[in-house]
Amino acid sequence: MKNNIEKNNFDEDLIKSKVNFVPLTPVSFLYRTAKIFPDRKAWVYENESATYSDFLYKVNALSEGLKNIGIKKNDVVSVLLPNVPAMLECHFGVPISGGVLNTINTRLDAKTISYILNHSKTKIFIFYEELFDIVKEAIDLSNYKNKLICVKDKYSKNNSPLKKILNYENFVSSYKNRGKVFKNFAPDDEWDALSLNYTSGTTGKPKGVVYHHRGAYLMALNNQMVWQMDYHPIYLWTLPMFHCNGWCFPWTITAVAGTHVCLNKVDKFQLKSKLEKENISHLCGAPIILNMIIEMLGSIKLKKRINIMTAAAPPPPTTLKKIEEIGFKVTHVYGLTETYGPAVICEWNSNWDKLSPEKRSLLKSRQGVNYPSLEYLDVKDPKTMKSVKKDSVSLGEVMMQGNIVMKGYLKSATSNKEAFKDNWFHTGDLAVMHQDGYIELKDRSKDIIISGGENISSIEIESIIHKHEGVLDCAVVAKNDNKWGEVPCAFIELKKTKENKVKEVDILKFCRKHIASYKIPKKIYFQVLPRTSTGKIKKFILRELVRKI
Amino acid sequence: MKNNIEKNNFDEDLIKSKVNFVPLTPVSFLYRTAKIFPDRKAWVYENESATYSDFLYKVNALSEGLKNIGIKKNDVVSVLLPNVPAMLECHFGVPISGGVLNTINTRLDAKTISYILNHSKTKIFIFYEELFDIVKEAIDLSNYKNKLICVKDKYSKNNSPLKKILNYENFVSSYKNRGKVFKNFAPDDEWDALSLNYTSGTTGKPKGVVYHHRGAYLMALNNQMVWQMDYHPIYLWTLPMFHCNGWCFPWTITAVAGTHVCLNKVDKFQLKSKLEKENISHLCGAPIILNMIIEMLGSIKLKKRINIMTAAAPPPPTTLKKIEEIGFKVTHVYGLTETYGPAVICEWNSNWDKLSPEKRSLLKSRQGVNYPSLEYLDVKDPKTMKSVKKDSVSLGEVMMQGNIVMKGYLKSATSNKEAFKDNWFHTGDLAVMHQDGYIELKDRSKDIIISGGENISSIEIESIIHKHEGVLDCAVVAKNDNKWGEVPCAFIELKKTKENKVKEVDILKFCRKHIASYKIPKKIYFQVLPRTSTGKIKKFILRELVRKI
Repeated sequence: MKNNIEKNNFDEDLIKSKVNFVPLTPVSFLYRTAKIFPDRKAWVYENESATYSDFLYKVNALSEGLKNIGIKKNDVVSVLLPNVPAMLECHFGVPISGGVLNTINTRLDAKTISYILNHSKTKIFIFYEELFDIVKEAIDLSNYKNKLICVKDKYSKNNSPLKKILNYENFVSSYKNRGKVFKNFAPDDEWDALSLNYTSGTTGKPKGVVYHHRGAYLMALNNQMVWQMDYHPIYLWTLPMFHCNGWCFPWTITAVAGTHVCLNKVDKFQLKSKLEKENISHLCGAPIILNMIIEMLGSIKLKKRINIMTAAAPPPPTTLKKIEEIGFKVTHVYGLTETYGPAVICEWNSNWDKLSPEKRSLLKSRQGVNYPSLEYLDVKDPKTMKSVKKDSVSLGEVMMQGNIVMKGYLKSATSNKEAFKDNWFHTGDLAVMHQDGYIELKDRSKDIIISGGENISSIEIESIIHKHEGVLDCAVVAKNDNKWGEVPCAFIELKKTKENKVKEVDILKFCRKHIASYKIPKKIYFQVLPRTSTGKIKKFILRELVRKI
Repeated sequence: MKNNIEKNNFDEDLIKSKVNFVPLTPVSFLYRTAKIFPDRKAWVYENESATYSDFLYKVNALSEGLKNIGIKKNDVVSVLLPNVPAMLECHFGVPISGGVLNTINTRLDAKTISYILNHSKTKIFIFYEELFDIVKEAIDLSNYKNKLICVKDKYSKNNSPLKKILNYENFVSSYKNRGKVFKNFAPDDEWDALSLNYTSGTTGKPKGVVYHHRGAYLMALNNQMVWQMDYHPIYLWTLPMFHCNGWCFPWTITAVAGTHVCLNKVDKFQLKSKLEKENISHLCGAPIILNMIIEMLGSIKLKKRINIMTAAAPPPPTTLKKIEEIGFKVTHVYGLTETYGPAVICEWNSNWDKLSPEKRSLLKSRQGVNYPSLEYLDVKDPKTMKSVKKDSVSLGEVMMQGNIVMKGYLKSATSNKEAFKDNWFHTGDLAVMHQDGYIELKDRSKDIIISGGENISSIEIESIIHKHEGVLDCAVVAKNDNKWGEVPCAFIELKKTKENKVKEVDILKFCRKHIASYKIPKKIYFQVLPRTSTGKIKKFILRELVRKI
């Protein structure tokens, strides 16, 4: 039959061209928003603010300036900045210049910063004035000889002798006129590098995670969709932008013409004053931020609901319960630097509304299901690569495939091979799969405690101890033991109230009530817990401690 | 300096693989939603309904069936179906089989359908039982000799003698078991053809507009974002799915785990009963749907706001005003079959809230600004390709570039060349650009009336006549005139009320008050207006009429 032989030519005449194909990039959201809502507030910072029209001009001027001092495609521009407006500008201006934005954690030591400057082959280094001492030290340790640009503002401590160092505001101002006659930027290829995020690596050298334009664009849209975010949110910048590019929210908030409420530090005072003054609708943060809010607001009830997205460590159900009582709506997400931040979300099922607050908090403390652009999420046995049973107990490694998995680690062929083994991204996190397809983290591979041949989840013990009313936070790690191989050992940070006189014996008694005896910590220490800048407890420090004791 | 010579190797080791690159496709939303919300209602149709889990199984069975009877990549599956559940299933099952979904307008004549069957080289033809007569006629006229599948349901008229014709439900049922063990589908390339939409072409042969997976995926996300749609909308299918794949809402609503409320016809009775019974939150439709609602609900006020997205012809400000008074929230969009449906939206600026209802309606009747995935929208002089001034009066052609511009017309090299001339998609629509960057349509190129050398916009005259209280709808076309070249001529459909005794003289008097004398219609006819299936007035018929008169 003639019909079956002839081709339909669905592709022959139908080629990609400028008309119907534009490489995806998250910076495109700024062009759209500045055009449609030029007069809306793009950011607020202390007593200053800028409209989207101002913001775009400034971004364009920054990118023109960077190009003019030599930034070309794939050149790295490193920034060491808190969540000030310049940091937002860099999230657009650097990619538009063709450069790759490398956001350095502001709490790193000089040695690590110098390593990152060298490894990334930084071409321009932009820093916050207050951080000059560490910058100077890092540069002395590195072979960095390129230009320095200093962001000064009246809210930071005077620190930097501005000789030979460009002043950010003056630098950008000098390209102001060029910023007004600008053509929209799109990368040559949406697979081109957009940004670089060094992992805080608990062991070994930090690895440079490379993001591309396509992934960040999709992530920005995913954030809006899963958080069911309307236009014009007022977003408080409690989450550091140096952490997975603030989980890509510089682009999401801009896409929906929201207001970025900037902060140069996050403390209780800042948090309280901004929540009250700025009519905040959304914020993100590790459970430490949730705890800060709970301590700060106590039994106050919010007049208007505030949406909070939390990630990093799994939030204990008790924390979830308390913050929702205040009036926050909590969305629990999970991800890694390697997945542009959150790639898994505990999507809420309205059938759960009728459950008790305790049950709801338990369900919400599960990590959940895939973001739309994380096309595949599974828990697998890394040896056989078979999926674990959906039985809530079989432990396996969380593995992922999808458009929001990183491009790879920069110049680390071996790490890439390991991370992408068997065509799946290996997260190193251990989890179970529940019958409803939601995953629940049980531990990092290296955090699991193997005692007398039994796997003990440190998270399980932690969430029990968390329920004790005198406990602010806690962490459980393995201690070597001649008899059992390993035994669990707990570090506890108590609430700082006068009447709090909790002792080891109280905790042990409490544990005996709630968990199997072999899981009860063999030793308990009371102390302030060491944390990373993003609120994660540094368990490797605690492990070193127990080794020495 | 060493730094400047060495490469950063941002691309060398960092290649695309299964781990970090998955071709985008709008069918992926179904996998996610069926996994997370298996028990939510995917669709409701009369007294029947299906959960997302059922829906996915059925879709998988359909695609297995299609593959089994020979559908391979790029084979065309044509469907002639109203908005029944089978039509929804085809929007997923056909692409998953590898086939290309060709949705045929159910109101076309047999000759045009036969042309489409031949031109598209249809391999399987699925139709609604009630439409058997026209199907038979079309097949007799065509060289179609492949399989026919008939969708029977108890709500359609018995019509088809099912000899040699497969019954859709039986066909799908026989692949039920295969549907349960299924791997998620992704196309080889996101640029692969997904669907085919023949334009209703007012002159000449219909052209087959080809959509690809990438474009429809982005469109589905864009719809959700610009309509600020939360999870679980209840969406009434008033817009035909054969029209730009229901503007891609089969995929959008599925992405946000909404409920599709299906209809096999759209009339006042259906509209009223579904709005009351199903707790509808969203619907789309041409201004004719808005008018139907206004007539039907009159002065009733809605208890809960319903969101309505309207496109096709520019809605007259009076219609917008009336429907918002009832309690609908209207979002006005504009687009073409060539742009996956709406690509332009009248984004609302909250500063306009304080204006009078009249001024607000006028602002809302403008077409607006680009969707996020229509990266470039402009109004240009097609000769010089220069942008028109943003002065609200300079007329130019609406032109577009972006990811939601079609792949092209099927087997129409010449049309593609014309449509994509100078690297811009030429819409053929004439518009002005306002100072705020919003475009406003003035006419189709061929609808403009040139009288005594002056350009007269037929839309301008129509919106004046619309304001007359006796008028239901109207259309103005050019009539040849020896003296002036062309003169405007109005066709008016009056409201069907007893007291309505409007005559030509009343309309002329009304026009004289509101528009320049050279724009006043030289002739007025009262009659029911001829419309396309999507509610557009067929001006070519009116033009023929005035030629003959």
